Order: sequence, then C-alpha cells, then structure tokens
Amino acid sequence: MTHEQLVSFLYYLVPVGAAAALLFAWIQSRKVLKSSEGDAGIVEIAAAIRKGANAYLHRQYRGVGIFFAGMFVILGILALLDMLNPFVPFAFLTGGFFSGLSGFIGMKIATAANSRTANAARNSLNKALRIAFASGTVMGFTVVGLALLDLSIWFFFLRFFYTVISPVASAAEMAQRITSAMLTFGMGASSMALFARVGGGIFTKAADVGADLVGKVEAGIPEDDPRNPAVIADNVGDNVGDVAGMGADLYESYIGSILSTCALAVAAGYGFAGVAVPMIMAVLGMFASLIGSFFVTTKEDATQKSLLNALRKGTWISAALIAVVAYFLVATLIPENRGLYVAVLSGLVAGVLIGFFTEYFTSDHYRPTQQLADTALTGPATIIIGGISLGMLSTAVPVIIISASVLISYYFAGGINNYNHGLFGVALSAVGMLSTLGITLATDAYGPVADNAGGIAQMAGLPEEVRQRTDALDSLGNTTAATGKGFAIGSAALTALALIAAYVDQVRLIEPDFSFNLTLTNPPVLVGLFIGAMLPFIFSSLTMSAVGRAAQSIVIEVRRQFSEITGLMTGSAVADYARCVDICTQSAQREMILPAVLAIIVPIASGFILGVNGVAGVLAGSMVSGFVLAVMMANSGGAWDNAKKYIETGHHGGKGKEPHKAAVVGDTVGDPFKDTSGPSINILIKLISTVSIVFVYVIMQYSLL
Amino acid sequence: MTHEQLVSFLYYLVPVGAAAALLFAWIQSRKVLKSSEGDAGIVEIAAAIRKGANAYLHRQYRGVGIFFAGMFVILGILALLDMLNPFVPFAFLTGGFFSGLSGFIGMKIATAANSRTANAARNSLNKALRIAFASGTVMGFTVVGLALLDLSIWFFFLRFFYTVISPVASAAEMAQRITSAMLTFGMGASSMALFARVGGGIFTKAADVGADLVGKVEAGIPEDDPRNPAVIADNVGDNVGDVAGMGADLYESYIGSILSTCALAVAAGYGFAGVAVPMIMAVLGMFASLIGSFFVTTKEDATQKSLLNALRKGTWISAALIAVVAYFLVATLIPENRGLYVAVLSGLVAGVLIGFFTEYFTSDHYRPTQQLADTALTGPATIIIGGISLGMLSTAVPVIIISASVLISYYFAGGINNYNHGLFGVALSAVGMLSTLGITLATDAYGPVADNAGGIAQMAGLPEEVRQRTDALDSLGNTTAATGKGFAIGSAALTALALIAAYVDQVRLIEPDFSFNLTLTNPPVLVGLFIGAMLPFIFSSLTMSAVGRAAQSIVIEVRRQFSEITGLMTGSAVADYARCVDICTQSAQREMILPAVLAIIVPIASGFILGVNGVAGVLAGSMVSGFVLAVMMANSGGAWDNAKKYIETGHHGGKGKEPHKAAVVGDTVGDPFKDTSGPSINILIKLISTVSIVFVYVIMQYSLL
Repeated sequence: MTHEQLVSFLYYLVPVGAAAALLFAWIQSRKVLKSSEGDAGIVEIAAAIRKGANAYLHRQYRGVGIFFAGMFVILGILALLDMLNPFVPFAFLTGGFFSGLSGFIGMKIATAANSRTANAARNSLNKALRIAFASGTVMGFTVVGLALLDLSIWFFFLRFFYTVISPVASAAEMAQRITSAMLTFGMGASSMALFARVGGGIFTKAADVGADLVGKVEAGIPEDDPRNPAVIADNVGDNVGDVAGMGADLYESYIGSILSTCALAVAAGYGFAGVAVPMIMAVLGMFASLIGSFFVTTKEDATQKSLLNALRKGTWISAALIAVVAYFLVATLIPENRGLYVAVLSGLVAGVLIGFFTEYFTSDHYRPTQQLADTALTGPATIIIGGISLGMLSTAVPVIIISASVLISYYFAGGINNYNHGLFGVALSAVGMLSTLGITLATDAYGPVADNAGGIAQMAGLPEEVRQRTDALDSLGNTTAATGKGFAIGSAALTALALIAAYVDQVRLIEPDFSFNLTLTNPPVLVGLFIGAMLPFIFSSLTMSAVGRAAQSIVIEVRRQFSEITGLMTGSAVADYARCVDICTQSAQREMILPAVLAIIVPIASGFILGVNGVAGVLAGSMVSGFVLAVMMANSGGAWDNAKKYIETGHHGGKGKEPHKAAVVGDTVGDPFKDTSGPSINILIKLISTVSIVFVYVIMQYSLL
Repeated sequence: MTHEQLVSFLYYLVPVGAAAALLFAWIQSRKVLKSSEGDAGIVEIAAAIRKGANAYLHRQYRGVGIFFAGMFVILGILALLDMLNPFVPFAFLTGGFFSGLSGFIGMKIATAANSRTANAARNSLNKALRIAFASGTVMGFTVVGLALLDLSIWFFFLRFFYTVISPVASAAEMAQRITSAMLTFGMGASSMALFARVGGGIFTKAADVGADLVGKVEAGIPEDDPRNPAVIADNVGDNVGDVAGMGADLYESYIGSILSTCALAVAAGYGFAGVAVPMIMAVLGMFASLIGSFFVTTKEDATQKSLLNALRKGTWISAALIAVVAYFLVATLIPENRGLYVAVLSGLVAGVLIGFFTEYFTSDHYRPTQQLADTALTGPATIIIGGISLGMLSTAVPVIIISASVLISYYFAGGINNYNHGLFGVALSAVGMLSTLGITLATDAYGPVADNAGGIAQMAGLPEEVRQRTDALDSLGNTTAATGKGFAIGSAALTALALIAAYVDQVRLIEPDFSFNLTLTNPPVLVGLFIGAMLPFIFSSLTMSAVGRAAQSIVIEVRRQFSEITGLMTGSAVADYARCVDICTQSAQREMILPAVLAIIVPIASGFILGVNGVAGVLAGSMVSGFVLAVMMANSGGAWDNAKKYIETGHHGGKGKEPHKAAVVGDTVGDPFKDTSGPSINILIKLISTVSIVFVYVIMQYSLL
C-alpha cells in the first residue's frame, strides 16, 4: 500500500468513528432510560422540567430557524454572485443543524437522567453517579459523533464532487478546495452555539437570580422550595443553559479546531496526509475516550474523593492513550515532521494544566477562594472587590500556559524554517487539547444533571440523605466543570488563533499576491485591535444587562404570585410555574438577538471601513482581550460560588449570617459572569473569525481603505 | 530670516513659555494664600490634613528615591557599557524629579486652598469657586510650566552638546540624536507618576473605604464626622491621591505626548522644523489656557449651572484659540503638509467628545446613571451587575472616537503615501488633545479641593449652608473631573500608540536593516499580544487587592479606637487621627512596589524571551486592553458614585433606605475602580513603552527568539 493509498484508506475511519460514537451514545442512553424514574412526585416534577425545557428549545429553534433562513438567503445570493463557494450556504445549514442537534439530544438525555439520578440517590451515591455519568457520556459522544458525521458527509461529498463532477487538476488543489469549503461551515456551528449559549445563559441566570432574589432573600424560603414560582424555571434553565448551551458550544469548539487545522495543513503543504492528521486524531481521541469511560467504576462504599478519582482515572487514561497513539499517527502520516507530535502533546498538557489552575483558583479547597470567603466578613463590597481581583489575577496562568503552548508547538512544528508548518503545529495543539472531548465533556455534563437531581429531591421532599448524596455529586460536578471550562477557554484561544491564520490564507487563495500589511503599527490594524479589544466588553455588557432585565421581570412575577395566589406560602395552593418559564423564554429569545447580530455585523462592518488588514486586527484584538476577560469572568464567578458554599459549610458563622449574605451577593454577581457572559465570549471570538472568513471576498471587493 | 533661522528662533519660546506658566502659577498661588483660612477650628483641621499629606509625600519620595537611585545605577552601568545613550540616566532623574515636583506643588497648594475655600464658602458660592479654581490653575500651570522647563533644559543642553562638544555631521542627525535622548526621560516621569498614582490611589481609597465601612455602615455616623478616627486620613488621601497623583500623572502624559511626537517628527523626515511643532504647540496651548482662564468669572448670584458654564467658557475659549493658532503654526513650520493641522484638530475634538460622553455615562443628569440607580431597588447584586455592564458598554464610544481620530490624523497627515508622515500626524493629535492642559487640569484639579473643603466644613461644624455650597462645588467638580478623565485616557491611548511607533524607530536607529516581523500572525507577536492584554488585568488586580488589604487594616484600627478610647462616640475624647494616616502611609508604600516593579520587569522579561517583535506585541496588547479596561473601570466607578448621590437627593427613598445601602456597596466597589486601578492603567501603558525604548538595545542583544 502506498502512502497515498494509506491516507485515502484512513479517511474511512472518520465515518466509522462517527458511527461508533453515536452507537455508544445510544447504548448509554438506553442504560439511563431503563432505570426507574421513581414515584409519582418525582415523575410529576421531572415532567414539568422536561416540558419547560422542550418548550424553550422549540421556541429557540424556531427563532434561530428564521435567522438561519435569512442567512441562507444572503449566503445564497453571494454564492450566486460568485462571491462565495457555492457549498457555503449548505455547509452553514448543516453546521448549525448538527450543533443544535447536539444541544437538543443533550437536553433530552439530561432531563431524563435528572429524575433517575435523584431516584437512584435513594439507594446509594454510587448508583446515582453511574446514571449521571452515563447521561454525561451520551452528551459527550453525541457531540463527538455528530461532529465526525458532519465531517464525513462533507469530506466525502466534496471529494466526490471534485473528482467526478468538477474534477480539479491536482490532489493538492483538491485538498485546498475541500478544506476551504469545509472551513466555512464553522460559521453555522458558531452561530448556533452563540444563540444556544447566550439564549440559554440568559434563561438560566434570569431564573436563578430571580428565584434567589425573591425566594431566598425576600421571602426567606430555601433554594429549590416548591413554593417558589420560579423554581421550575430555575431547573429548566440548568438544562437549556448548562446542558444544551454547552453541547452546542463544544460541538462548535471541536469542529472549529478540526476545520481550521485542516485548512492550515493544506497551507503548510501537507495535502491530504496533513488534513488527515486532525481528522484521524479526533477519531482516535474518541476511541481513547470510549476506552477511558470504562474505567469510571466505583465501589459501593465510594466516598466523594474516590468518586472524583474514578472520574479522573477515566480522563487520565484517555489522555495517556491519545498521547501514545498520536505519535504513531504523526509518524505515519507526516513522517518528515515529527515535531508535530510535540505540538499535539503541548495542547494536551496545556488543557490539563489550565483545568488544574482553574480549579486552584475557584475551589474552596485552596487558599484563593478561602481568602475570598474571608473578605465577606467586611460585607458585600469587599467580597465583590476581592472576587474581581481574584479573577483578574487568575488570568496570568492560562495566558502563560497558552503562550508557552503556542511557542512550543510553533517551533517544534518547524516554524523557524517554515512559518506555515509552525502555524499548522499551533492549530494541531488545539486538536490535541480537544481530542479527548468525549470523556471530558462527559465528566463536565454530568454536573448539571446532578444539580437538577438535587433540585428534584428537594422539591419532591425526598429524605435529607438523598439531598446530601446529590449535593456531593453536585460539588464534584463543580470541580469537573472547572476542568471542562479550562478546555473550553484554552481551545477557544488556540482555535481563534488558527482561524485568524486561516483567514489570512483565504485572502491569499482569492488573490495570491494580495499585499498584506498586518504590521502592528499599521493604523487600520491598530484601530482594528482597539475595536476588537472592545468587542468582548460590549458583548458581555449586553448579555449581563439582559440577565439583569430578565431577572427583574421574574422578580416582579414571583412577587405578584406571592401576593395574589392565596395559600401559596402555606402550601395549600400551587404556584404557576409555567408563567415563569414563559417569561424566561420570551426574555431569552428577545435578548439574544442583539449580541448575536453584533458578532456578525462588527467584523463585516470593520471590513468595509478598515479593509482586510483591519479585520485581522479586529480578530486578534478580540481574541486576546476576549480570552483574558472570559477567564476573569469564569474564575471570579466560580470563586464567588464556592466562597458562598464554603461559608455555608459553617465558616464565618454559616448560613444566614451577615458574611453569608455578603457571599450571596457575590454569587449572584458571579452567576451571569460565569454562566452567561464568560462562556459566550469563547464562541464570540471564533464566530467573528468564521464570519470574516465567509465574507472575505465581499470585504476585499468593497472595503474603503 | 530664513526658514531655518525662524525655526531656531521659535525654540526660544519654550523657556519663555515655561517662565510665563510658572510665573502665572506663582501669582495665582499668592492669590490663594492671601485669603483667610478662617477661625481656629478650621485652621486646626487644615493643619492636621497638611501634616498628614506632608508626612505621606516625604515618605513616598524617600521610598521612590531609593528606587530612582537603584535605577540610576543600573542605567549608569548600561550607559558605561555603551548600551544606552550616556544622557539617559540623568534624563531619567530629571523626568522623575519634575513629575514628583508637580505633584508636590499641587499637594501644597491644595492643602492650603481647601480650608480657604471652606472659609470663603461662608460668604458665597462664588468666592469659594474663585479660590478653588485659582488653586486648580496653580496646579495646571505648574505642570505645564515644569514640563516646558524640562524640555528647554534638555533641548538646549543637547543642542549645545552636539554642536560644540561633540559635533555631529548634519542637522538631521542632530535632531535625531536630541529627540532620541529626550524620549527616554519619559521613563523617569512615567515611573514617578506610577508610584504617585498607585501609592496615592491606595492611600486615598483605603482611607475612604475603611472610614465608610466602619463609620457609615457599622457605627452609623455621617461622612466626615470628626469622631471617625479615619476622617483625617480620608481627607489626606484626597490630596495625596487625587491631587499629587493626578499632577504627576498629567505631567507624564503631557511630556510623554510631546517627546514621542518629537521623535516621530524626525522619523518623518521633518527635522528641527518638525520637532518644533509639538513643542511650540505646547507653548501656544499654555498661552491659550492662560487667556482662557481669565474668562472664568462669575457673578455674585451665580447658580451651579452658571458656574459650570463659567468653567466651560474658559476651556472652550482656550480650545478655540489653539485651534486657530495651530493652523498658522503648521503652515509656518511645515508648509508642505497642512494635513497635519487636521491631525491636531482631530485630537482636540476627540478629547472634547470623550469628555462629553464620559459625562453622559457617569452623570446623574443622564439616563444611564439614573437607570443604574433603579437597579439598586433589587439590592447590591443587581447594582453591581448594572454598573459593570454600564462601564463595559461605555467603552464603545471612546474606542470609536479614538479610532476615528487615529484614522483621520493618519490619512490627513499623508499616511497613504508616507507611513511616517501618518504616524507623526497620529502623535500630533495627542499633543493637540493635551495642548490646553493648563486649563483642563485647572478645572479638574479644583474638584478635590472643593471635596476637601466640604470635609473641613463638616468637621469644623460650619453652618449647613456652607456645606451645601461646598457640595455644589464638589458636584461640579465631578462633572469637570469626567472631562479631565476623558483627556487623560484618550491622550494615553494616542501617546502609547506613538510610543510603540517610536520604539520601532529606536530599533531601526540601532540596526537600520533589522528585519522586523510585526505581523499579527507571527507567534511571538501573538504571544506578546496575549501577555500584553493580560498585564492591565494583573495590574488592576494587584492595586485593587492592595486597597482591600489596606482598608481592612483601617477597619481594624478604627474598630479598636471605637472600643478602646472611652468617650470617643460622645465627643468627650479625640480620636487618634495620626495612627490612621500612618497605617495608610505604610500600606501604600508597601503595596505600590509590586505593581510598579511588574510594569518594569514585564516588558524587559518579554523582550528576553520573545525578542523585539514580541515586545511590540506586548505593548500593543496592553495598549488596547488597558484602554478598554481603564475606560470601563473609570466609568463604572463614576456611575456608581453618582447613582448613590442621585439616590441621596431623594430618589428611591433617599438616604438610609435599602436602595441607598445597595448604592453604597456599588460606590465602595467603584472607589478603587475609578481612583486607583483605572487611572494607573493610563500610566502603565506608557511606562512599559518607555521602558522598552530605554532597554531596546539590551533586548536586541540578549533575546532568546
């Protein structure tokens, strides 16, 4: 078998991997569904949550559908005017469709698993973990499987098209045509992900903040109390925000990193063999995750610590496996540049390190969050200052890790002699980081399920020990979520970087002797940097104030129900949960439009005014300021959350005392930080890149400068 | 007279301008000092404030003296090793000295004027304004005068040196030698300014926050109550932070913008005629300010609105004057490029516009701050989210204004044909913006004096109407301070930009065929951008947590005094004010070291690792993220402050109610935002540039990449 034949053969692993991942997800989902939901009380509550989540997602997909239809028409016109590859409008649709589907399936399984986890927690911690984790694997492998499926469909279709229907001269040119067309379907996935993250993030935090403000603070009833009319909305929020949002988000990250790396493989001159590296790496990573997931086993008498170790064992084994097989993959496909293997490793290590330091800064097992809890002693103002300060300080570590990873992967991949080889290495490090997404997402996605299970246990009046078990799972989920966030943020930075390089390549493909001036001191570039640096701030402002407004309407509604529904507080009347779900849904739908439109308009408008160079400045500016801001918001929010929990475990007087009240203020501020604005920025910085790539021809034609 | 002779002659205007400015400042200070301080009560309090401020500044200058001595030795060694222009160590010292002196004189006159303003307010609002404004002009014209003096000394000395002692071949080379040596004394001014801003900022906010937390919140006594042991420290803080810090800061901005423009004039090939443009513009701007200041007159029955108009008239007239004479200056000196005049104008207009929009976002006369006050209705968490969101949103306007100004000045100055002409235009726009610093600083600096006068009136038990008058002045001061902040932030961005260009020039001067790769997608540049973008966040984190820690020690001390000094609350015993002043002084001294060292170490260390290109990335990254963050912090802080004041005027239940308490939390968070971290970032982004310029040779010799 020649090298060429081998490469050609290896591509068939992609659909095989897709099928395996989806099959595994299906098996796991059967496992979840066959366990019992429990008694009528649980079933009823779970049904209400499910109904709310379904209602929200249907409405969201309807709204997003209009957007996609509109964009399809615009892209179609551009394609007809020959300003766009004719496949782009369709690729845009499939990217959006699969991203949305990832979120939808994730939500479906999560809303099925939460009641079952609550019910299993009646028996043991271990059983509950198994169900929650199984639902996490459904999510993880669905995302990976759909991404590999989307890749397969387009790859084989385009290869067929350029071989049979409209043959091109050389393999190199075919690889270039295929990757450059595929690159654009990242825009569909990113748009969908942005809607899901922003909409879901607004929903979940509006419900959460609103429920807390009136319930906990004004009425003095505990969290997840069924008398609180916003309580179902709060639980729906966990599913549509943390689960569906995260699914769409990570689908986008995963496929974005693969697609940009494929494009840079061609730019580096590695042709189909190069393109195969990220694709096959993704497949191998999926299998490594699958194997790793079997090691997540626990004994019946498991403690919280041994559970964490079980989860960690799974991720570590997967990472070790991919670290080994990646060497052989690189050595087989691109034997002349084994430095690329170091690039993959650097990405893997960077992801783990960022995860670890995220945990260090936000877990109450470590000094930073404990010290933050101390600042609650002098009231809300000092804990706010402390939390912002902690978040800002924590940006140093990921920046240094990512910087080191970029330099290592660039130079080891041969950047000193060949710039494009180096960039390919950088892109590949992002693929390395995300290669084990199947299992990292599984350990991350089970958190909201456990959280919801706790809510259901509380609402259904299950015994105290059940709630304790779900709390233990939830707290574990917070730790694994920190790791997950590390991967999401780190890979976003590396992928955005690769996308900027891909953008520059696209310009060169259209006009090979385009005279770039991407020099830092070129005024359009500088102005682009300023505008880019500002964009994540504006975006965060819009999403945060959206949460504020939506929470306000929930506050008013809950107050109304408390005063108008007689017998609500005594338990003799039932709250109108659906109304709160409805308000959140409407607010989220309305409020997600402006930020999303901004992300699409700004790069195009900047392009018309500042030209091709200016757009690169916008992208780079957004990437660096967005990365730092996203880390800050995520870590400030996480630390406030855990500082509050730390106080609730009895420090500084425990629940209900003044320091606790101050910590609740911190936590409330942190909610939109960590669950709405912060994670949305990760998508933003990639979406503006893919938008620029799609519209690059238009920008080149009509720019002012 | 030939053109060359004319240029040579015009330079003599610089020392003339310096003398005129200093003379005017001296006359104004006599005017302030000859008015009466009032009765013994006022005199005693004023003396205590004066004593505290003196003690702080002496201690600060001693600490900073050690730093300057150390840096002098390091720079001296580098100069002896021929890695630095031999004049740099001395220029470093004079820059620091004059910057410190500006702050010192400002503090002296402010501590003399505050009691006199309080006393004058017994008679009328108008008399009080005159004294406060006169003290502001002392500050404004001292800063401008000392800057022009420093420029004169070095310019004439270096011209003499390169003409007589060590003659150089051509006028062009001489201009290049002179400007490149002078450029480095910005580092001395910036270092001093950073110490003054950070140290003063920590002092003032630690005292303010500490006094409020225990006094207002815990003990329930009003602001500026003499029973509060931290009350004198709070007032001392206004003088050492807002006045001395601001003086050193604006000295640095002013001279930094002139020096970088001079260097770029030479790079643009305009030689001595080009260098004269920013220098003479500064002189003309000083005279314009001087004339403008005579128009700040008020009638006896002045209202707050007419006072504001009086102040505005002064600044508008000055701006109009300089707008006219700048045309003739450009037409005379560089008749072949009148587009440079548009650059000057764009800077002037940008400064005014940023000031206006800063006011729009932070004044309670406009919707944003009023709406922020509404969010206090649902508690501290929502007003915090609202304020951060407002600050983030408000970054859009200055970014767009600065972007427009950069593009306009670049293209009108001829950037399309000659890149260096364009950059000279951009730099010149910063000089245009700051040309009327004499009067803008005067209207800005009078604010803290009025604030202090109010404090003294309260402490000395002056009648309620006196306090009302000083409050009216203070509130006016908040408005003019917003304008002042616009100038400070806007000019910092433009100057930082010019300094980056100057840094690149310096590399070329050392090695004319240095092969730059400042392309955005070059990994060392990208990594530099990441690190640069992070730096303002780390810096803000350090300064904010320093305020937190220092405030904490004040809280403990005040609590101790309340419990140990019997009769303190009933007024029969006097608090130990000096102890609080002492604690703040010590904290500020200790805490200012790390941020300052960071600002010096990071660019040098980045240079060693990332090389010359990477440093440019660091500078650009810091500039853009620092600008956005500084605007956000300043505006969030300003809006919280005024939202609180808005509620205090009776909205949402007025003082003491829950919304007011929530607004106090916002204001407390905003204090370090707007008065410590935010303004320090402006200096940071210039200091790292000047450090890079000074150490460029070392970086070129020893960099890794």
